Amino acid sequence: MKRSIGAETFLCVHPDLIVGTYDHQGRPNMMAAAWGGICSSDPPSVGISIRPSRYTHQSLLAKREFTISIPSEHYVAEADYVGIESGKTVDKFAVTGLTPKKSDLVDAPYVDEFPVVIECRLSNTLELGVHTLFIGEILDVKVDEAGLSPEGKPDLTKIRPLVYDSIEMGYYGLGEFLGRAFSKGRSFK
Amino acid sequence: MKRSIGAETFLCVHPDLIVGTYDHQGRPNMMAAAWGGICSSDPPSVGISIRPSRYTHQSLLAKREFTISIPSEHYVAEADYVGIESGKTVDKFAVTGLTPKKSDLVDAPYVDEFPVVIECRLSNTLELGVHTLFIGEILDVKVDEAGLSPEGKPDLTKIRPLVYDSIEMGYYGLGEFLGRAFSKGRSFK
Repeated sequence: MKRSIGAETFLCVHPDLIVGTYDHQGRPNMMAAAWGGICSSDPPSVGISIRPSRYTHQSLLAKREFTISIPSEHYVAEADYVGIESGKTVDKFAVTGLTPKKSDLVDAPYVDEFPVVIECRLSNTLELGVHTLFIGEILDVKVDEAGLSPEGKPDLTKIRPLVYDSIEMGYYGLGEFLGRAFSKGRSFK
Repeated sequence: MKRSIGAETFLCVHPDLIVGTYDHQGRPNMMAAAWGGICSSDPPSVGISIRPSRYTHQSLLAKREFTISIPSEHYVAEADYVGIESGKTVDKFAVTGLTPKKSDLVDAPYVDEFPVVIECRLSNTLELGVHTLFIGEILDVKVDEAGLSPEGKPDLTKIRPLVYDSIEMGYYGLGEFLGRAFSKGRSFK
């Protein structure tokens, strides 16, 4: 038996995306976004939704380039802090001790300590009520050597990303591997 | 030291969304989508990206209403099967034994056995290369009683959603709770 919980923005599993931009004074800033996902395979594209009141919103419209850094479990406190304060008033890199590294590909900083960075160029925007959906073409993804398998592929058991729960407003780690896609379901064929 | 893996559609954490529609003959169908995320808080909206070649694409454009069912770990094989076959040729509900239940709110079926269902009405579409981004307004979310906390809120440790890894093409479960948002980061204030 199912019970209604109302029109909640709840997909159970949400990413924790740390969006890096330079502001109009060239200062590195970062914000936390859980409203996001891949929205095309070709051109490889990611969508993130940001309220106009957020400091990153204006930086993104001005620069049209950004990064997404993916925090590991180890940095859950730092990643959470990024979602508490605003870059209007605080240098979140200085407070957390995280290092803003300039991307070689785009005019935006990423978090050097986080295991994965996605470098993006803005391709579309769409106003959707209280949020602007920013769509970025993914130009490259870079992963720490320590997060790669011996074959050079990203290994989530080494990257240890966060899963964001939008109802409880909390973070989970990654659980056990349950099986391969396009394989587990073959038992029904 | 970071290594480039190319312009991959890799956010580490992706949801596993089972999209339910009725086709032009009124038959229930479902497809698996990992390209999706919340894209506005108000009106509460979710975006999912679907290739025009997928059977659900035409049903969605015709009906303009759909559901998203969230599978639990227990149904990883069924959920994976949904991503292997096409509703053009196979009745995926019949093959898996899953039950298509008609939504009371929208003209679309959901998977009765899955712990969470999100009922949506199409509000926008955007062509993004090989995918169409479908944006749906979330009209309601319904959760199995067994997936709720004593206070009546969805509890991910009971729902046990899947996390999809787009690089390894595999499924993970949910790991341990790491802390509350807007709380863990207060240590930096």
